[in-house]
Amino acid sequence: MHQSSSASSLGPGGLDLTQAFFKPIKSSSQPGPSNRHTKVSVIGVGNVGMAIAQTILTQDLADELALVDAKSDKLQGEMLDLQHAAAFLPRTKIQASVDYNVTAGSDLCIVTAGARQNPGESRLNLLERNLAMYKTIIPPLAKHSPDAILLIVSNPVDVLTYVAWKLSGFPSNRVIGSGTNLDSSRFRFLIADHLDVNAQDVQAYIVGEHGDSSVALWSSISVGGVPVLSFLERQQIVYEKETLEKIHKEVIDGAYQVINLKGYTSWAIGYSVASLARDILRNQRRIHPVSVLAKGFYGIDFGEVFLSLPAQLGRNGVLGVTNVHLTDEEAQKLRDSAKTILEVQSQLGV
Amino acid sequence: MHQSSSASSLGPGGLDLTQAFFKPIKSSSQPGPSNRHTKVSVIGVGNVGMAIAQTILTQDLADELALVDAKSDKLQGEMLDLQHAAAFLPRTKIQASVDYNVTAGSDLCIVTAGARQNPGESRLNLLERNLAMYKTIIPPLAKHSPDAILLIVSNPVDVLTYVAWKLSGFPSNRVIGSGTNLDSSRFRFLIADHLDVNAQDVQAYIVGEHGDSSVALWSSISVGGVPVLSFLERQQIVYEKETLEKIHKEVIDGAYQVINLKGYTSWAIGYSVASLARDILRNQRRIHPVSVLAKGFYGIDFGEVFLSLPAQLGRNGVLGVTNVHLTDEEAQKLRDSAKTILEVQSQLGV
Amino acid sequence: MHQSSSASSLGPGGLDLTQAFFKPIKSSSQPGPSNRHTKVSVIGVGNVGMAIAQTILTQDLADELALVDAKSDKLQGEMLDLQHAAAFLPRTKIQASVDYNVTAGSDLCIVTAGARQNPGESRLNLLERNLAMYKTIIPPLAKHSPDAILLIVSNPVDVLTYVAWKLSGFPSNRVIGSGTNLDSSRFRFLIADHLDVNAQDVQAYIVGEHGDSSVALWSSISVGGVPVLSFLERQQIVYEKETLEKIHKEVIDGAYQVINLKGYTSWAIGYSVASLARDILRNQRRIHPVSVLAKGFYGIDFGEVFLSLPAQLGRNGVLGVTNVHLTDEEAQKLRDSAKTILEVQSQLGV
Amino acid sequence: MHQSSSASSLGPGGLDLTQAFFKPIKSSSQPGPSNRHTKVSVIGVGNVGMAIAQTILTQDLADELALVDAKSDKLQGEMLDLQHAAAFLPRTKIQASVDYNVTAGSDLCIVTAGARQNPGESRLNLLERNLAMYKTIIPPLAKHSPDAILLIVSNPVDVLTYVAWKLSGFPSNRVIGSGTNLDSSRFRFLIADHLDVNAQDVQAYIVGEHGDSSVALWSSISVGGVPVLSFLERQQIVYEKETLEKIHKEVIDGAYQVINLKGYTSWAIGYSVASLARDILRNQRRIHPVSVLAKGFYGIDFGEVFLSLPAQLGRNGVLGVTNVHLTDEEAQKLRDSAKTILEVQSQLGV
Repeated sequence: MHQSSSASSLGPGGLDLTQAFFKPIKSSSQPGPSNRHTKVSVIGVGNVGMAIAQTILTQDLADELALVDAKSDKLQGEMLDLQHAAAFLPRTKIQASVDYNVTAGSDLCIVTAGARQNPGESRLNLLERNLAMYKTIIPPLAKHSPDAILLIVSNPVDVLTYVAWKLSGFPSNRVIGSGTNLDSSRFRFLIADHLDVNAQDVQAYIVGEHGDSSVALWSSISVGGVPVLSFLERQQIVYEKETLEKIHKEVIDGAYQVINLKGYTSWAIGYSVASLARDILRNQRRIHPVSVLAKGFYGIDFGEVFLSLPAQLGRNGVLGVTNVHLTDEEAQKLRDSAKTILEVQSQLGV
Repeated sequence: MHQSSSASSLGPGGLDLTQAFFKPIKSSSQPGPSNRHTKVSVIGVGNVGMAIAQTILTQDLADELALVDAKSDKLQGEMLDLQHAAAFLPRTKIQASVDYNVTAGSDLCIVTAGARQNPGESRLNLLERNLAMYKTIIPPLAKHSPDAILLIVSNPVDVLTYVAWKLSGFPSNRVIGSGTNLDSSRFRFLIADHLDVNAQDVQAYIVGEHGDSSVALWSSISVGGVPVLSFLERQQIVYEKETLEKIHKEVIDGAYQVINLKGYTSWAIGYSVASLARDILRNQRRIHPVSVLAKGFYGIDFGEVFLSLPAQLGRNGVLGVTNVHLTDEEAQKLRDSAKTILEVQSQLGV
Repeated sequence: MHQSSSASSLGPGGLDLTQAFFKPIKSSSQPGPSNRHTKVSVIGVGNVGMAIAQTILTQDLADELALVDAKSDKLQGEMLDLQHAAAFLPRTKIQASVDYNVTAGSDLCIVTAGARQNPGESRLNLLERNLAMYKTIIPPLAKHSPDAILLIVSNPVDVLTYVAWKLSGFPSNRVIGSGTNLDSSRFRFLIADHLDVNAQDVQAYIVGEHGDSSVALWSSISVGGVPVLSFLERQQIVYEKETLEKIHKEVIDGAYQVINLKGYTSWAIGYSVASLARDILRNQRRIHPVSVLAKGFYGIDFGEVFLSLPAQLGRNGVLGVTNVHLTDEEAQKLRDSAKTILEVQSQLGV
Repeated sequence: MHQSSSASSLGPGGLDLTQAFFKPIKSSSQPGPSNRHTKVSVIGVGNVGMAIAQTILTQDLADELALVDAKSDKLQGEMLDLQHAAAFLPRTKIQASVDYNVTAGSDLCIVTAGARQNPGESRLNLLERNLAMYKTIIPPLAKHSPDAILLIVSNPVDVLTYVAWKLSGFPSNRVIGSGTNLDSSRFRFLIADHLDVNAQDVQAYIVGEHGDSSVALWSSISVGGVPVLSFLERQQIVYEKETLEKIHKEVIDGAYQVINLKGYTSWAIGYSVASLARDILRNQRRIHPVSVLAKGFYGIDFGEVFLSLPAQLGRNGVLGVTNVHLTDEEAQKLRDSAKTILEVQSQLGV
């Protein structure tokens, strides 16, 4: 099944009318610049995948968008629903198929597909099911788009980014997990809300494992360029450790809260991943906390593990990792997370 | 329940830190320009309401966004999910409440709430339930935002726009139904796809009742300013009536198709309504086929009924109705639809 | 002289600090996707060239912008002035040089350079000077960017587009003159202003030679999809021929008026050309009246001449020419213009 | 002279056709929401004023734009040149007049008008001429838009912002000078260029007097949230004081460099002021280094003087001043600048 256009059902009349309407200009036989377009594929059209696809479309980041999912009906429905908005958007070619050949030549492949935890299922069992799924996703993606950047969103994101790296055979700079980019946004929103400032003026990182063991870099918080902790010290304001930890707890609880209330998360992860997509595709060299191969950083020299660190992103994927200062306690937490993840990976046997 | 901010749980520390961080500048006691902001309320946070709210947010159309729904949990979940994206978006105040006072002072109120048809339920019975629901929605909206534009999206949209007009007591220029704006977009997409042109270069209207009895204005179709029908005649191309009717049928089937495939429609209606919101709020005076009080147009002089006609939209709502030419057959179809709707309205007893 | 960055004066310290700050991630030796960027070159940094360059920058249409001019000081000043805005714009590489190698690998080259008419100088003499200038511009451009689209803005635009076509050796679909795209925008603005509608809802073409002999296609005027002339007829409104010709006269006078009042034109031509650049680079397939090789259209079979016709634009340049209906009188005017231009071209001896 | 539209020359035919084309919908007599639009006035249509006006237009920040200048011809030329681009832009009402009543009801008034220094003229003499000019500009602006924010761009900006404050009688939160916002952008660009990062990831402030005595806040520099100075210390990298001072010198020289090379500055100041306009009009609460009443900050308690400090901006103008840490040396420099400016002000006798 390959659905690039619903109008194909209109029969051959289309071609004739088009040719009458336009006198086509013959392109030269010389290699033209027409292949310089931007193509994004989104694997998995659930709430997360579609929020990402729609935000990328609204923000005009791609010339071509390909959707892949195992559920053919849902897939075609989502494609049609986006296509029906053509009159309100810049022209973008939108395709959908259960077959990965629809993704051929992508610049960026975003993987959101993943199994859901069954009641009573162990975390390891879930991971094994996701590993099995990734074995059917990553190799065909890598085959059809050998130069693409892989952006992994499925959870547990750090382990699955490692899995995608192994299965793709791609160099590590081209395999990125969305990691704590959204956690950091939640962190920045809560600080901004606390201080009544614009969240875009707040710098603050959550790094490490995406999830309960994430590490909040207190010393990284600055507002409008003013480091908050040293400001508090200078002003002899009692260090509001409790307040800060409350905020970090609220960040960790953020996803659970939304899931409990509405059943899933979608909009914020959509904006978060679209923001990564933009900075990769437009070669913006901006810095985001995303899951990268962490070996060699902060004493993580005991294995190959992906963790979120502030990384500079561009058309080549990860361009570098920012040498941000961690306290000894923070670095130790990172290493502890790394070890836990490594153990899981060894059990998986990737 | 009123949730303007999740950080209020952080205690009174917030205020102190803010005041230490900023030396606030006292505003004058003179009436400042601060009330010149743009506020949009969305009633109903289902798939349609949220696609609209998120597209309005992404396109930076409002300074303040208020969400209302009867389901408190879902409501808070959607609000948090949008707020968590603050670092990726221009600053917008996002509020949510089951209480309509959160909508106070809106410039535009978009109503997407509506009952679903139960199996075996008659259309009239469904309408009666929606009427009952609108009696709890429209009066408080109108009370809290007496100068707002009401934009009705719930179905059946033409009757419910009439209901909203009656219940609000607003002048008819400030009560608009999304009507066939989306049908027309589907029409333009299918023609554009057929001719391999950009849908934004295609002009084509579906008017009348939103739904199966909608009227396609064949003579209104132009591509890049070239009227298609007279072009076909001049080129002595046999009038492809079948092709055109196939396209109209595909437009009518569009919504059903998407609903059958994915269970509901969301993205296209989201873009369609955001486009109306933009042209109203930014006073663009652009022309859209939307549901307006049709009395006095095309011989509809026998009652007060809302139907989609190409209307010019701006900050005052409907500024005028375009005097587009209809064939006798098209005008008759319009009048027939008007009569059917009027009958339904008389049964409702609004 | 090659000025890609003013900071090079800061010495070798830069590199060291960068490497300390970032741990660079080694890119794979595999061919990466990094060459998929969009580069635009603007030749001539006068008022027109800079209005185009700045609008392209503001609208985020390119990843790389190269400026070329013979005046080295002016050139460096304009480059620095744009670079200083980096904090307010998406990251774009901005380069400037008197040497055409700075344009290497462009997707689109926009030529605005041209001689000014000296007092008492004949039109032919001016053209000969411009021809001499184009002989130093087009061949190096074509050499450094053999796959680029050439977009000619210098006047007289139709003859110079022909000259650029001949000098480049490019296929005709990749050589486009900005032609009457701006005249048509002025036409649409005046009609919109007359009717108090949004100019984006007005379709109306000026075609033919850019300048005094341009042809207004009255029958092409539609507003919100309603053809204006047939509307007037149906309404038995006396055909306001005088009003329409007043509007056409005002379009023709538009450029002179602005030049008389402020000394040159800049903003409108900047927006007009940026709009063409967007639809070419993002492969939008939209229709614009631009100067294309007109041989074979409307009986112009007596020579190779460029004239504005409604053409569909995309990544391959001109994709087709719209088969718009002309009256006999309009077609005759087109052929007359074509003959005049051909005569000039034969005198030039290109 | 009042030129809101060039089409008024088309005679009364316009009205009739419009009324035939649209059936106007009567607006209610109730006070509608139509006055909730955003109006910006730009005083002075030289290179700086027009770069600001055009950038505001491109970025769709206003519903209405009014231009004022003493030179009637230039003024009408610039208005027409912007209006001719209507088909490429969202609809914005553009007006121009030598009479200040065209600015009535502005939300934001941007003043760029100013005298140029004559050869051999003393700085004080120049200021006296500018003061005389401001006496004809500020009172009518304040009268026609009593609730507006005044944004002063003319140089010397700090003294003229004080002058505008005095002449307007506005509270100090509604009188802002563009100050060192552009200097800080140049600073961020040079640091970003040095480190090969995105300038939007660089936080760095130049504060104090706009010009040669500006103060670079070294400790405020951070890249992607990492404070650069403490990073250098921790990495035991020898403090590159020379490099940093070279960068500051290059910032100060930036404007002179551009003026020497192209004759004036325009684009960067256009983007810089448009960025302030956006954050004020859309109530973004973002922090910018702009010229504000500095009395009470950093020991400046000896007089009323405007200097650039990082200030939070929104619909009420200056919302607060960030309590950024200065070293004793930096604070002393600020106070010295303040004293110099105060002396000038006392000589002016405002």
